[in-house]
Amino acid sequence: MTGFADLGYARVDVDREARQGLPEVVYAPGKQPAEITGIVTELLASGTGPVLVTRLDPGTAGQVEVPGGSYHETARLMVWRPAPPRPFRVCVATAGTADWPVAAEAEAVCGAIGLTTHVVRDVGVAGLHRLLAVREELARADAVIVVAGMEGALASAVGGLVACPVVAVPTSTGYGAALDGVTALLAMLTSCAAGLTVVNIDSGFGAAMAAHRLAHTAVGRR
Amino acid sequence: MTGFADLGYARVDVDREARQGLPEVVYAPGKQPAEITGIVTELLASGTGPVLVTRLDPGTAGQVEVPGGSYHETARLMVWRPAPPRPFRVCVATAGTADWPVAAEAEAVCGAIGLTTHVVRDVGVAGLHRLLAVREELARADAVIVVAGMEGALASAVGGLVACPVVAVPTSTGYGAALDGVTALLAMLTSCAAGLTVVNIDSGFGAAMAAHRLAHTAVGRR
Amino acid sequence: MTGFADLGYARVDVDREARQGLPEVVYAPGKQPAEITGIVTELLASGTGPVLVTRLDPGTAGQVEVPGGSYHETARLMVWRPAPPRPFRVCVATAGTADWPVAAEAEAVCGAIGLTTHVVRDVGVAGLHRLLAVREELARADAVIVVAGMEGALASAVGGLVACPVVAVPTSTGYGAALDGVTALLAMLTSCAAGLTVVNIDSGFGAAMAAHRLAHTAVGRR
Amino acid sequence: MTGFADLGYARVDVDREARQGLPEVVYAPGKQPAEITGIVTELLASGTGPVLVTRLDPGTAGQVEVPGGSYHETARLMVWRPAPPRPFRVCVATAGTADWPVAAEAEAVCGAIGLTTHVVRDVGVAGLHRLLAVREELARADAVIVVAGMEGALASAVGGLVACPVVAVPTSTGYGAALDGVTALLAMLTSCAAGLTVVNIDSGFGAAMAAHRLAHTAVGRR
Amino acid sequence: MTGFADLGYARVDVDREARQGLPEVVYAPGKQPAEITGIVTELLASGTGPVLVTRLDPGTAGQVEVPGGSYHETARLMVWRPAPPRPFRVCVATAGTADWPVAAEAEAVCGAIGLTTHVVRDVGVAGLHRLLAVREELARADAVIVVAGMEGALASAVGGLVACPVVAVPTSTGYGAALDGVTALLAMLTSCAAGLTVVNIDSGFGAAMAAHRLAHTAVGRR
Amino acid sequence: MTGFADLGYARVDVDREARQGLPEVVYAPGKQPAEITGIVTELLASGTGPVLVTRLDPGTAGQVEVPGGSYHETARLMVWRPAPPRPFRVCVATAGTADWPVAAEAEAVCGAIGLTTHVVRDVGVAGLHRLLAVREELARADAVIVVAGMEGALASAVGGLVACPVVAVPTSTGYGAALDGVTALLAMLTSCAAGLTVVNIDSGFGAAMAAHRLAHTAVGRR
Amino acid sequence: MTGFADLGYARVDVDREARQGLPEVVYAPGKQPAEITGIVTELLASGTGPVLVTRLDPGTAGQVEVPGGSYHETARLMVWRPAPPRPFRVCVATAGTADWPVAAEAEAVCGAIGLTTHVVRDVGVAGLHRLLAVREELARADAVIVVAGMEGALASAVGGLVACPVVAVPTSTGYGAALDGVTALLAMLTSCAAGLTVVNIDSGFGAAMAAHRLAHTAVGRR
Amino acid sequence: MTGFADLGYARVDVDREARQGLPEVVYAPGKQPAEITGIVTELLASGTGPVLVTRLDPGTAGQVEVPGGSYHETARLMVWRPAPPRPFRVCVATAGTADWPVAAEAEAVCGAIGLTTHVVRDVGVAGLHRLLAVREELARADAVIVVAGMEGALASAVGGLVACPVVAVPTSTGYGAALDGVTALLAMLTSCAAGLTVVNIDSGFGAAMAAHRLAHTAVGRR
Repeated sequence: MTGFADLGYARVDVDREARQGLPEVVYAPGKQPAEITGIVTELLASGTGPVLVTRLDPGTAGQVEVPGGSYHETARLMVWRPAPPRPFRVCVATAGTADWPVAAEAEAVCGAIGLTTHVVRDVGVAGLHRLLAVREELARADAVIVVAGMEGALASAVGGLVACPVVAVPTSTGYGAALDGVTALLAMLTSCAAGLTVVNIDSGFGAAMAAHRLAHTAVGRR
Repeated sequence: MTGFADLGYARVDVDREARQGLPEVVYAPGKQPAEITGIVTELLASGTGPVLVTRLDPGTAGQVEVPGGSYHETARLMVWRPAPPRPFRVCVATAGTADWPVAAEAEAVCGAIGLTTHVVRDVGVAGLHRLLAVREELARADAVIVVAGMEGALASAVGGLVACPVVAVPTSTGYGAALDGVTALLAMLTSCAAGLTVVNIDSGFGAAMAAHRLAHTAVGRR
Repeated sequence: MTGFADLGYARVDVDREARQGLPEVVYAPGKQPAEITGIVTELLASGTGPVLVTRLDPGTAGQVEVPGGSYHETARLMVWRPAPPRPFRVCVATAGTADWPVAAEAEAVCGAIGLTTHVVRDVGVAGLHRLLAVREELARADAVIVVAGMEGALASAVGGLVACPVVAVPTSTGYGAALDGVTALLAMLTSCAAGLTVVNIDSGFGAAMAAHRLAHTAVGRR
Repeated sequence: MTGFADLGYARVDVDREARQGLPEVVYAPGKQPAEITGIVTELLASGTGPVLVTRLDPGTAGQVEVPGGSYHETARLMVWRPAPPRPFRVCVATAGTADWPVAAEAEAVCGAIGLTTHVVRDVGVAGLHRLLAVREELARADAVIVVAGMEGALASAVGGLVACPVVAVPTSTGYGAALDGVTALLAMLTSCAAGLTVVNIDSGFGAAMAAHRLAHTAVGRR
Repeated sequence: MTGFADLGYARVDVDREARQGLPEVVYAPGKQPAEITGIVTELLASGTGPVLVTRLDPGTAGQVEVPGGSYHETARLMVWRPAPPRPFRVCVATAGTADWPVAAEAEAVCGAIGLTTHVVRDVGVAGLHRLLAVREELARADAVIVVAGMEGALASAVGGLVACPVVAVPTSTGYGAALDGVTALLAMLTSCAAGLTVVNIDSGFGAAMAAHRLAHTAVGRR
Repeated sequence: MTGFADLGYARVDVDREARQGLPEVVYAPGKQPAEITGIVTELLASGTGPVLVTRLDPGTAGQVEVPGGSYHETARLMVWRPAPPRPFRVCVATAGTADWPVAAEAEAVCGAIGLTTHVVRDVGVAGLHRLLAVREELARADAVIVVAGMEGALASAVGGLVACPVVAVPTSTGYGAALDGVTALLAMLTSCAAGLTVVNIDSGFGAAMAAHRLAHTAVGRR
Repeated sequence: MTGFADLGYARVDVDREARQGLPEVVYAPGKQPAEITGIVTELLASGTGPVLVTRLDPGTAGQVEVPGGSYHETARLMVWRPAPPRPFRVCVATAGTADWPVAAEAEAVCGAIGLTTHVVRDVGVAGLHRLLAVREELARADAVIVVAGMEGALASAVGGLVACPVVAVPTSTGYGAALDGVTALLAMLTSCAAGLTVVNIDSGFGAAMAAHRLAHTAVGRR
Repeated sequence: MTGFADLGYARVDVDREARQGLPEVVYAPGKQPAEITGIVTELLASGTGPVLVTRLDPGTAGQVEVPGGSYHETARLMVWRPAPPRPFRVCVATAGTADWPVAAEAEAVCGAIGLTTHVVRDVGVAGLHRLLAVREELARADAVIVVAGMEGALASAVGGLVACPVVAVPTSTGYGAALDGVTALLAMLTSCAAGLTVVNIDSGFGAAMAAHRLAHTAVGRR
């Protein structure tokens, strides 16, 4: 027993569900529909948990021939066998409307792996009263995912309001000096609010997986 | 009641302990010894939790005139009234010996705020057997802080081994293309292991505060 | 009449006071004390307004042999013949204590050129109640200079609270991903609060001169 | 009364007109036509001032179903209920013909919010006599917006000629080492002319909003 | 005898086969089909070794009118007169499925110039057991080419496992902070595993040519 | 007499021919065909020298309605009234075939303004004998324009062989670490061969204009 | 038997000699003299091969209390028990005199691990005849290490002359646009000479270790 | 006869005087006083032209034991056997007083190699009348060297005024966004004035050597 299945074009880590409470997640870019089909089939067969394909465009999604999957277009996510809900509440907060696709990925992945999500949209710091109005909603969360582009200041403001883990997701929203999300990334890393952590630009998926790890420690597989 | 104390040279956030379970932490660079003395005195008076001063060089530490503090030289940390231990285990893993000062800060801050720490040193991926030998130690942790410079690959390797939260701290160890830690930072942000989160370069403090937030959700103030 | 005085080592723009309401300001780095002495003497002789030397270290300041100057050590500024006050109120707000030297330069230059200043210190967004408490003070200003390092989020928050001009000064406070102020600079340039303007890193002087231009339009030389 | 209207997909800041003399401006990228329609409708209902949508491509503009708007194609701006003119004169100067679309946005936004504009085109420093010929036009302005790409030197030259506020807008005109406007941005930030301020690359909108803030202080809502 | 053939549009280095054991390789981008045809014809006439055209898209490949060539689509490589096999074993290891096109180029070029290749796919460090399972395969190689994007950590892990030369190829797989392969490049250059060498981003060709040089020293032209 | 013609959409510098021996050159990107038509017409009317439009794509070129122009497609250049030849010899040397379009622009512009050109193609340093074979051709030039992408090493090699001015043009040829020409640019600026000068990436035009200035000093308008 | 020795402050990889034919090499920066002493003692006891400490400044070298070591000051290298010579010839070529310290490290490490070295100094491409004069010396090598700063063009020139492996070491020699070696690094990675490989800036050590790997394949441990 | 002298620590290019009209110039950093002494002695013996050592600090200069040299402290240049004057006039223009050391190097090197220099100081574009006042002085030059830091705009303004070659030298004057001269470098490379050429940051030497090449073509060795 090697802990992986060698499909030729891929070496599927079928041990990951035992190791980390979740099967390997399939990253779609650069994979053929037939390859995705094969990997998903293998993951469904070798484990019992949810199976996810991320960054999957609609055209390719239509060619993945595994029954039972549901596709979230904004999130570009396909899911088979979603996990039952666990008592871990994630609040997903966005700075602006343009950050929504990234937040949608975070929300959809959280949902697929059994975390409870609550979304708070459009609370950027240019109108602080909008943020202060959702203070209670933020305070009820077990973790907050902050999704913001441009200067990403929302992460610092939220980080100062709540005591729970804050995972900041910089987005590529903006132009010019926003540098495709690099500015928000750097800003979040140097936040004056202590204890924020940061994931890759536009990675709603990464933030949701960080929440999965938090839930593992906080509530296990309940 | 404003929630802060205005000392003239500083506006101390005395509400933070209630809000986030920990008083404001004092960042020493750019502050005069008398200012640090004043802020620490205020924080001790207005709250009941631990009071910390970070990035404090030994010379300045000697001029801070508040009794009862203890100074950790490698961590450049001064602490008053450390918190009692809580049942939350943080494993601090380093890639190489040169990463130790950053890891020492993470360990010392964790200790001061009541988290239990376990240190695993010198398990860089150039000798994977060293890392595999501590697999059990890693698996017992509620969170792992990975401290690594150069290419920072330890974060990805650890991220694939454990299910709990992994907070990656890039360090400025290395030269040339290491770009003072920027390379390790970028590498950790693009890790192939899902759900890692990252803090600023050389910020052992930031990683410990992220662990504080994790503990808040997982075990509260027990 | 050429509009400048050729001292050999410098070509002093003695026309600037007529053109812009303020004599040329002397940038000290790279100049010898004797050169500074000569230029200041020329500017005092050829005009009637205030004469300023910026970024002047204390050692060199002691060697500038022109009577009547006063030296501000934190601001590294030397001033002769300060302007009488004009009815233009500038509020200088800082995010943290470490940003003070840059704010001090802004304040001292504003004072020397006749603008009224009001300083609000240590109102970073990690404790929003500190900022909201000074909302009235900000609202009374004719212009606000925001001085902030790290992620520079204070600029966006202030930009959303006031209607007057906001000049943002990024500082080199911070480490690692703060990139010596470049991160704050980029963040302020991509602020979600509309109509902010930005000056060079650590340039309290630049912000004060921007305020000088604002006052020119708003109140002229009253 | 919360100060915002929650439309589900957006949290419209209806308090901004009272706070800053201008309703929230809608940034079109990433928003659906129906969303823009909804937000504009809300802003028109909840306030009395001008309503603007920026960076709106012609195709989407045709799908925004709110009567009474006028669309400026070069400026990519749609405006409802433009403000009456106020006695504040903005001169918009461009270095070259290729900078025109950015200048057009600045001009159109200024017009929509009631500022008087005067445009001076194609006065780049490679032919200084072109710039010197418009010196009088520049001197009559209450503020100058300088729009320039490539090395952006026009900002420095104008900054030395006028006493009023100068807002510099770097553009992405140019190739190679122009780095999509980053070179002009950096150059403007380090101008040898004191008191220039800078906005984001290609942000004619940002410069116009900075002028709005200037007008607020100089002439209020007259 | 000049050592080159001047075709007007190109100066073909017909001496290279004698000098380096391999004719000049044709880099297709920017060349017309007729030019490629002419250069290949010249190389076939003036030497006896394999002739290769790299980075050749399928459309252009169809227009190259020289009989006897075979085209590898994934590798974008066209080959005439491939070399007979030499006793030098190259193992090509990839971190993920998306790295395959770059690895395919390395494999195809190695094959064309007479090196024996063995491919190990999808052994990224997020599942170390997959890598450890191929340890024997790696140990049998005379050289290993590691192809990895994102954070490129596989290079360090392999570098610590084998004694033979390791040539690391960073790929542009990934998004955001992956910076189109720059992050993997920097990470490989700062590897904690000693003696790795690195080639350009996505350059499977460069790695194969490095192996050609290794084989020259190790086994000559046997 | 102002020295320029104000066409509304452009302020044409009709004084430049007197000042610099050549009319203003029209940069096509961002200009409408009608605007180009108008500017060219004005330049032809107000001067006697050659009129050039650069970076003109074929589609737009077909819409420029001024008789007598000839269009060079590879060089993307349109020329009216080319200058008679002057006794100044420019050698244009390229490193590889892919650098040809940039060299073609240099050659075509030189030809249009009366400089004599000689082209040496494909003499990159990977086969030094190709370069050494043209040493005499290089030595006969009054100036050499070196056009090279990738690492741009040809500039240094040529710089060490000739005594005359060498203008280096980095090109965007290459991929990955070539960074769209930035690497060649930096390399040429730090050449170990003394006295090289450098122009913008892909700017064959800039190099030709530098040669125009050289010819002005060396041979005047002969 | 774990394959490592846990000294508390370090986890020494005592298995590396068996795995890679050379004990772990000690990187001195960030280590205390007592720690270096301990690690060297452990390595000498647990293996039979050479023991090296790199980047060791003279002051610390004097405090390392392990008899039998010899210290190379220019190379900042300390060696115990150097390996007997093996029949593998490395030619170390430098572009300029200022590159010598990096070349000295490469030479000293090669010597310590049993490789035969031949040094060719000061053959930069600004005087190609110097390079061509050593062509025979280069041709006799089994591998060439090219050490060059500034634009690093020597690597490309050598790469075109020899058939054996070429390991390029960029150095931080130069100023301004040399960017502390980054320019040479990028230039070497994009060399027009095929099959070059590159190591980190100023890493003479890395190049020597790459040669160690080459020798492993070419001549084993003979 | 090889064309070079092998001193062991250096391979002196004694052929360069014949090839380029000037002996090799010695770059001091990284060379020992004895090495400089040896190289200078060799160059004096093997040629007849001027011998120069650049970037030589005063301490090392005092240890160079070759009689007859004169040392320019501001220019950090030592010269033996300066060339007789040739009829080629170089105007060296600086933007500000802080740029003087770089301009001094340009002036001193020009003087040593026989070019006639004229210096125009402190004519930055913030006071255009200062520049226009020296227009005649600029027009009399055979070439202009423009030395400017910060945003480097002087180069564009001069480029538009004169017809002769303009060599732009960016300096590291400035702070923050000046990025140690990189901003001025990029700005000069993207100048709107056609035909400027650029040398490395702070390289007064490079500009003077470019002038040497210009003089070679324009006036030969007269």
